Amino acid sequence: MNFASDNTAGAHPDVIAALGAANHGHVPSYGADLLSDGVQTRIREIFEAPEARVYLVATGTAANALSCAVLTQPWGAIFCHRNAHIEEDECGAPEFYTNGSKLVLVDGADAKMDPTALERAISHTGRGGIHNVQRGMVSITNATEAGAIYAPAEVAALSEIAKRFHLPVHMDGARFANALVAAGCTPAEMTWKAGVDVLSFGGTKNGCMGVEAVVIFDPKRAWEFELRRKRGGHLFSKHRFLAAQMQAYLTDDLWLDLARHANEMAAKLSAGLQAIPGAKLVHPTQANAVFAAFPRGAHKRAQGAGAYYYLWPFDQSLEGDESVALAARLVCSWATTPEEIDEFLSHLG
Amino acid sequence: MNFASDNTAGAHPDVIAALGAANHGHVPSYGADLLSDGVQTRIREIFEAPEARVYLVATGTAANALSCAVLTQPWGAIFCHRNAHIEEDECGAPEFYTNGSKLVLVDGADAKMDPTALERAISHTGRGGIHNVQRGMVSITNATEAGAIYAPAEVAALSEIAKRFHLPVHMDGARFANALVAAGCTPAEMTWKAGVDVLSFGGTKNGCMGVEAVVIFDPKRAWEFELRRKRGGHLFSKHRFLAAQMQAYLTDDLWLDLARHANEMAAKLSAGLQAIPGAKLVHPTQANAVFAAFPRGAHKRAQGAGAYYYLWPFDQSLEGDESVALAARLVCSWATTPEEIDEFLSHLG
Amino acid sequence: MNFASDNTAGAHPDVIAALGAANHGHVPSYGADLLSDGVQTRIREIFEAPEARVYLVATGTAANALSCAVLTQPWGAIFCHRNAHIEEDECGAPEFYTNGSKLVLVDGADAKMDPTALERAISHTGRGGIHNVQRGMVSITNATEAGAIYAPAEVAALSEIAKRFHLPVHMDGARFANALVAAGCTPAEMTWKAGVDVLSFGGTKNGCMGVEAVVIFDPKRAWEFELRRKRGGHLFSKHRFLAAQMQAYLTDDLWLDLARHANEMAAKLSAGLQAIPGAKLVHPTQANAVFAAFPRGAHKRAQGAGAYYYLWPFDQSLEGDESVALAARLVCSWATTPEEIDEFLSHLG
Amino acid sequence: MNFASDNTAGAHPDVIAALGAANHGHVPSYGADLLSDGVQTRIREIFEAPEARVYLVATGTAANALSCAVLTQPWGAIFCHRNAHIEEDECGAPEFYTNGSKLVLVDGADAKMDPTALERAISHTGRGGIHNVQRGMVSITNATEAGAIYAPAEVAALSEIAKRFHLPVHMDGARFANALVAAGCTPAEMTWKAGVDVLSFGGTKNGCMGVEAVVIFDPKRAWEFELRRKRGGHLFSKHRFLAAQMQAYLTDDLWLDLARHANEMAAKLSAGLQAIPGAKLVHPTQANAVFAAFPRGAHKRAQGAGAYYYLWPFDQSLEGDESVALAARLVCSWATTPEEIDEFLSHLG
Repeated sequence: MNFASDNTAGAHPDVIAALGAANHGHVPSYGADLLSDGVQTRIREIFEAPEARVYLVATGTAANALSCAVLTQPWGAIFCHRNAHIEEDECGAPEFYTNGSKLVLVDGADAKMDPTALERAISHTGRGGIHNVQRGMVSITNATEAGAIYAPAEVAALSEIAKRFHLPVHMDGARFANALVAAGCTPAEMTWKAGVDVLSFGGTKNGCMGVEAVVIFDPKRAWEFELRRKRGGHLFSKHRFLAAQMQAYLTDDLWLDLARHANEMAAKLSAGLQAIPGAKLVHPTQANAVFAAFPRGAHKRAQGAGAYYYLWPFDQSLEGDESVALAARLVCSWATTPEEIDEFLSHLG
Repeated sequence: MNFASDNTAGAHPDVIAALGAANHGHVPSYGADLLSDGVQTRIREIFEAPEARVYLVATGTAANALSCAVLTQPWGAIFCHRNAHIEEDECGAPEFYTNGSKLVLVDGADAKMDPTALERAISHTGRGGIHNVQRGMVSITNATEAGAIYAPAEVAALSEIAKRFHLPVHMDGARFANALVAAGCTPAEMTWKAGVDVLSFGGTKNGCMGVEAVVIFDPKRAWEFELRRKRGGHLFSKHRFLAAQMQAYLTDDLWLDLARHANEMAAKLSAGLQAIPGAKLVHPTQANAVFAAFPRGAHKRAQGAGAYYYLWPFDQSLEGDESVALAARLVCSWATTPEEIDEFLSHLG
Repeated sequence: MNFASDNTAGAHPDVIAALGAANHGHVPSYGADLLSDGVQTRIREIFEAPEARVYLVATGTAANALSCAVLTQPWGAIFCHRNAHIEEDECGAPEFYTNGSKLVLVDGADAKMDPTALERAISHTGRGGIHNVQRGMVSITNATEAGAIYAPAEVAALSEIAKRFHLPVHMDGARFANALVAAGCTPAEMTWKAGVDVLSFGGTKNGCMGVEAVVIFDPKRAWEFELRRKRGGHLFSKHRFLAAQMQAYLTDDLWLDLARHANEMAAKLSAGLQAIPGAKLVHPTQANAVFAAFPRGAHKRAQGAGAYYYLWPFDQSLEGDESVALAARLVCSWATTPEEIDEFLSHLG
Repeated sequence: MNFASDNTAGAHPDVIAALGAANHGHVPSYGADLLSDGVQTRIREIFEAPEARVYLVATGTAANALSCAVLTQPWGAIFCHRNAHIEEDECGAPEFYTNGSKLVLVDGADAKMDPTALERAISHTGRGGIHNVQRGMVSITNATEAGAIYAPAEVAALSEIAKRFHLPVHMDGARFANALVAAGCTPAEMTWKAGVDVLSFGGTKNGCMGVEAVVIFDPKRAWEFELRRKRGGHLFSKHRFLAAQMQAYLTDDLWLDLARHANEMAAKLSAGLQAIPGAKLVHPTQANAVFAAFPRGAHKRAQGAGAYYYLWPFDQSLEGDESVALAARLVCSWATTPEEIDEFLSHLG
């Protein structure tokens, strides 16, 4: 019963098997091998973007921070939600890679930027000319840190605001597959057709070992990305092992199947939780994470039985009145089973 | 017949197998798992350094650049050989991670810093006080980029100079195992006993898929390293897969066996080359790389038969007089076979 | 009738005269001259801080950004008010000089940080350990960007919170003299006795040509400051001309007299404005700036008669209903005259 | 008898007078005043460059480092002479402002880059593609740190090499006036007609108090420069006082007269030195600095009589055999008098 994060799960067996399959003979290093080339071709097909450039890195933080660095100047503001991963969970990696840009925080329910708030933030920034940080870029997290998703039309609405100010748009898609299957649209509809310029296309959280693809829809930015990736220490010499993971992930729609499973597990967990007396959702369950409040007594029973997850926010206390509701974040992954959920719920009721 | 680099080889089967073995159930992410803890313990034992802190990253560039960043201030000079990997092959990663330190280049045969030249470089730097870049740190590559090694006494001689100026010492050990078996000493003798403060302990080039351990002998620098690693995007969420590689690598002295094999293959290749009419070594063969000049005609025959390697320097031409000698870099790895070498030599003679 | 800023005024005649007086013969450059030494001595006396180190730079942005860079690591948060100059008016200079720290914004009336809000911001930051930006430093602007001042006890209250978290405290004193005479306390009481570690002690806005002193109460940080100042291009070769300005500024309490005058002018302006029908203060008038709203018609008459000042916020429109009140920022300086104020008020009524 | 540097002199009286003249009434801050505008117009005329953009800063280090930052990416090499001021005397400011570019050092007599050495350095850099620092820009110091000058044709020869590799060219003209009058050419001939893209046009060393103009011949780079200047803390609020200095400096060819005088004093000193038994020039005397070796005994007599200058290199000793020749750097300025030189020479003979 581990709902702490989708990164406490291992890798899907197909991904591990692909590493072994790729481990034959000498191949060119640094991404010049056929497997790496094939991954780029496959991602272009999936995204209906024959001009896109695809770069693999091993962590989501690297994917996001490098993407920001090619999309904004050091003096450009990055507009993102107050709870975006790039703001809260990357120890300042975007600031480091951009050489000091400023994240300007936008509010909105369920960790989704409110379009009006985004427009206000952009128009407020840089009004004083040379004295201010300038308008730089917009970064959208989909699925969000609160388990919600943006539909393509919602992404397009934010992009439209960005484009009105001539700003490029990044999507942090660490959980892109979860958002996609929830939205029921194509990868192209969720990204470049909705105005996204660069996508961090996550693999790690959804069944890979450690690989993310940065998909750059405008190839003019590609060479700079390559230089920044190398300079950041993120260009793998034995690059075939990044490519092999991604290849397996994309074969026979494995990535979509795994995300669909994780979302279904979250839906099951969400439904079960809502049936618990005194429990209620804190955010709607739209992807693979459930944010729900339920009585402290139920928390104690579940954790006593070995369930792992985070109270959300962290600093709540399990000490005290058993009937008080405390909120939790419960993340399902490709590896979550219905049995785990049933067992977990059995301890709460 | 691929001698292009030790990174064109795959991973040792034990390393791949270890990934599968580690792929069971949920474990804490970001290095808080038992496997990661075990690797730290094992490396402390190997290095006889119970206080050392061990951090895993996936690339040598990350290991080196992060090490530099904790050892010098932005205004500190990094003293290294003119042909050090950090100077020539990392696209300025040390300058990026240190926020702009200056690499001060030291000469010496076979890519080894000459102690007198090092002392002169250090004493020359920072003499003008506030106007100059200050003295920062010393970085020693072992084995060197020219296939030579420093014996422990040679490392100690350089460290002694560094310490006289109160400078910390880093060792770029991307090919540490190759240097170690060539020198016939213990890991401790090659490092902290010889004055090394931080070691980039390479795994990737010697049979891993993508893992390097940064060994910090002085634990005071550890927390800063952790922050810089995260901020650089080099902290893996599914960290067990870095640890599993390193664990397999260190089990039953696999790392030493693989390095010994690579060195033996280089010795065999070196001996064979020296028997070719018109061939001669450019650098002594001490680890797993051979630098030798031989006639252009022999190059053409070998490459025509499918041999891969780099002319060294790159910009020599295969066009022209067949008897002219051109130098090459030929790198052997854990995966090089005697048969490959025999076949290669057969085309040269 | 120029109330646009205290930096549209020139320099006090004594300051200009001091430049001529300093312009005799050869003197050592880069601050090794007697005049520069004398300024350090004088500032130590004024602040009752015999160990303090004093460094001169020419701009407030340099003083603030360099101060931040010695007080926090790149991964440290700078806690400051949402409207602090370092957040809003320096084009990201603190982020640049610190190599990417994050400004965490704290609310509070009149651009003063509310202690409870500061404590919440600090305790909220860095809770997730390595994943988060860490707690770095606190920066207090006195007088604030809204023309208010912190009394020494208020500074001490914020410092006490900072110290509880082991954070150093910076004071942006671009208008330090204005705050000091308003508070009626000693320089020591306003700074180190209230927990301030580093002060940007402004001269430019209060009658100098272009000089600010960074006063570092803890000398351990001094050498790093010197290196950062040089590396930032802020060490003057003909340093005597910075020192001469500061010397004149501090002679016979000129700095206090000028600030007192500016504050009195603001008080007069504030009183006059409050007598205008339909006018009211937006922030209390405590130092040398007045923030007041008055009818659009009055704005039109004043500006038509040649008055200069900013609507606050900028983006209000003079077009439309004459009776609607619009807010303005009106800054008085050492050079403001009672006649200017009378004339200005005469156009409003 | 002060020959330590041209920055130990004060400012020309006309420059000081101009500060007083500019000190009347309120004027717009941050360079929006008429005086600042007039300086730009005047420099455009002097350089026959009606499209050029002109920005004032207060130090040479700021002028150079900001210029580099707009001319190269962080991963671009800056090709300069081994003894360039940006390499030796700015505490790494170019590395800081560029966010970590690498200075690649080029040899040549008298601190002038040898064209063949420059071409070799450029063609050697970046050959390995993504793994290497890329080719960024060329920086030429005129007059050089060894007191020599490049004639326009020599500048053009270096620029031609740079342009062949599509690299922009910066000129560090901290002593531009001295070089210009020595070469006997026009400002345009020395700069944009010879391929220079950005010039650091020095004022401080040649009679100003503290002002340098950055002349950007290609206006496309101008806005980025403005942002970097502000972000670096180098935009003066009371900008009129930078402009006033530069205006006085350029009025009635004062700048050329002062440089001509300094060069003449150096020529007189050089001639006098060469007449001393045992003395000889180390570098030719072409601008305002003399590099000469003469017996230790003569050094002792001169310094005993109160002469100030640097032994060059610093670390020679005045202890020992009186007949041994030691080299010195002797810098003349606009303020050097024939009498000082005669007195100095009288102590040597």
